[in-house]
Amino acid sequence: MTLKPIDLLLSNANKVVSGNKGVYEGFSIAIDSGKIKAIGPASEIAGLFHPREELDATGKLIPPGFVDSHTHVIFGGQRAGEFVQRCSGADYEQIAAAGGGIRASVRMTRDTDLDTLVSDALPRIQRMMASGSTTIEIKSGYGLDLETELKMLRAIAILAKDCPAEIVPTFMGAHETPDEWREDRSRYIKMVCEEMIPAVASEGLAEFCDVFCERGVFNPEESQAVLEAGIAHGLKPKIHADEMAASGGSLVAAQVGAISADHLMMTPPEGIAALKEAGVVATLLPGTTFFLSKPTYAPARKMIDAGLDVALATDRNPGSCTIESMLFIMGLAVQRMNMTPLEALEAATLGGAKALGRSEICGSIDVEKRADLILWDAPDEDFLIYEFTNDLSRTVWAGGNRISGPPVHS
Amino acid sequence: MTLKPIDLLLSNANKVVSGNKGVYEGFSIAIDSGKIKAIGPASEIAGLFHPREELDATGKLIPPGFVDSHTHVIFGGQRAGEFVQRCSGADYEQIAAAGGGIRASVRMTRDTDLDTLVSDALPRIQRMMASGSTTIEIKSGYGLDLETELKMLRAIAILAKDCPAEIVPTFMGAHETPDEWREDRSRYIKMVCEEMIPAVASEGLAEFCDVFCERGVFNPEESQAVLEAGIAHGLKPKIHADEMAASGGSLVAAQVGAISADHLMMTPPEGIAALKEAGVVATLLPGTTFFLSKPTYAPARKMIDAGLDVALATDRNPGSCTIESMLFIMGLAVQRMNMTPLEALEAATLGGAKALGRSEICGSIDVEKRADLILWDAPDEDFLIYEFTNDLSRTVWAGGNRISGPPVHS
Repeated sequence: MTLKPIDLLLSNANKVVSGNKGVYEGFSIAIDSGKIKAIGPASEIAGLFHPREELDATGKLIPPGFVDSHTHVIFGGQRAGEFVQRCSGADYEQIAAAGGGIRASVRMTRDTDLDTLVSDALPRIQRMMASGSTTIEIKSGYGLDLETELKMLRAIAILAKDCPAEIVPTFMGAHETPDEWREDRSRYIKMVCEEMIPAVASEGLAEFCDVFCERGVFNPEESQAVLEAGIAHGLKPKIHADEMAASGGSLVAAQVGAISADHLMMTPPEGIAALKEAGVVATLLPGTTFFLSKPTYAPARKMIDAGLDVALATDRNPGSCTIESMLFIMGLAVQRMNMTPLEALEAATLGGAKALGRSEICGSIDVEKRADLILWDAPDEDFLIYEFTNDLSRTVWAGGNRISGPPVHS
Repeated sequence: MTLKPIDLLLSNANKVVSGNKGVYEGFSIAIDSGKIKAIGPASEIAGLFHPREELDATGKLIPPGFVDSHTHVIFGGQRAGEFVQRCSGADYEQIAAAGGGIRASVRMTRDTDLDTLVSDALPRIQRMMASGSTTIEIKSGYGLDLETELKMLRAIAILAKDCPAEIVPTFMGAHETPDEWREDRSRYIKMVCEEMIPAVASEGLAEFCDVFCERGVFNPEESQAVLEAGIAHGLKPKIHADEMAASGGSLVAAQVGAISADHLMMTPPEGIAALKEAGVVATLLPGTTFFLSKPTYAPARKMIDAGLDVALATDRNPGSCTIESMLFIMGLAVQRMNMTPLEALEAATLGGAKALGRSEICGSIDVEKRADLILWDAPDEDFLIYEFTNDLSRTVWAGGNRISGPPVHS
């Protein structure tokens, strides 16, 4: 029998953990042309392929690459001073009311040119990829005028072209009301719906449309108007919901059929039921709770027990969460939200893929899916969580290409 | 005027932050034969030296290398399962009572040979050095019999010889009562004092002697006896005090003149006063509080306001804290204990050096001190704290040798 030539064989992993709850021991993974071609017991797989490169994964854990489905990783400037202020007692909403918060990033992003936006974001995205993220969503939303929102989305497009990870763009003109329209929020919403969304859609610069439905930001009616305008122009809806208060955002998500509702720290039982009924993915961002030193994490157990699809993401942004590592987020999910290591791993991979409409493409180790993989110097998922703050050695592949970490020749 | 030849010049740093509260802008540091030879304004220093290597530090922050003055980084096996159990609700003291906790590590350490102890610890210590720790204390205390305690201390000695960071050994036979002496704790204390301490001291395997003074472990009288036996054999006293309860440990520390009292999560006001009066360094380990999801951090502000010398350390160990990064510990100190970024940086450098009796040798950037330095890709200490969970680019020197990170040629 002729052995089929393939690009890469990862052989005899201690454990392969796929996002769809599959856990296998002593398995090998065959990779060719950027995709998973086979997965099975090491002895079976060895007899089928002639790999150009083979890596011995004995004693090691291989899960899928992380899908970070919620980030704001492109922005002008930084807000270190604000973080330190908050650590000495200032409240996030107070800082925002005083012109800090998102509005400070808006001023700095407007003042930053396209090339600088890209070059400032690049080391962050490189660290995220090195930490294992192979699919990364990025939102606009620090422009809040047509020109700057387009500049942000063009920066995302440049990064998407240059990065080995898949970058997914989201338009979020309704992230906050800019200073110049604070006295006429309805006029700003009209601009978002009638000027920005059509322009973004006609240039093909975004796949999703997101809105911040929150006390003091946009109310449920405004949020729904923005998401429906997006839908009319082919942008799939996402929503920031129930972060600081039960703002009604989860009900809006269900109403418009959003692909995901994100944050959900304060979601009441009827919100959970509505999300379940409408098939909305619950995207949890425990890094933000941690970074803001808030006492209340999203009710992950209630959501899982209700049968919701749960995703975990970093929310990496300049104000409320600088965390870039999906493993750190998984650690918080286990430690603070009582998720199991396997649940956290599924939420950080297949859950994220569902939240981005990509569950057929990535998020688990299945034949014909993209070869996004992490080979960890860890025997199992419990150990990974146990060491979640540490820089464990790992090799990361995106679309079959090694993008970070040591080669491990057998 | 002849320029003096030196090994290395770090020039024009955005900020140099020395442990002794000095903050300088536009400064350069001259290094030769492993020591700091000069520090001053960039223009002055440039005219004095002819460096064999010069690195342009413009826009970057240079603090001293971290002094991690409290770790248990050598141990057999691991306890990932116990961590996951605890995340789903089991209590640390319950796990310990059921034969887990320190006693589980004792069983595994007794079963691990010297070479494996060393090779298992090496990647941890390499990660700690890469994260910026240039002085690392390591305790024994998972042997609890003469043979295994000596094996641990010999492993520490091997690592000390091989590592570019300075490794400082501490004997901690009184870390717990081993299973075989649980019915006769006083007999075990007698063995620690009369057999182990003399043997350790005669081989020169430890510089410090430590004891776990805690409800259910050793009481103040037993702790004092151990530390006094250590003093009689030339081992300087340290103590684990007031971690789970106000155990009286801070009073023992003051009584015996300990160089440091460590943990101090539950220390009452009279404990703080006693430590101040006796000149004991308060070593705070916020990583343990975080890792155990305990609600109460050590009262750092009260201690600083009382004029105590405060050190920060990782407590890296297999059970109650796996955190290896001193920057992460600093982030917790700012975020959870209300320390300022500069206070945290001082505690993680000069504070640690004081807790190890090395404040004349390391812990700050002063002439004739060891050239232990970190060049961070960060403009200032606020930014460092703001990004404390991220893998910021950095170059680390220990004794003038670059031990990690990219060379940055000007």
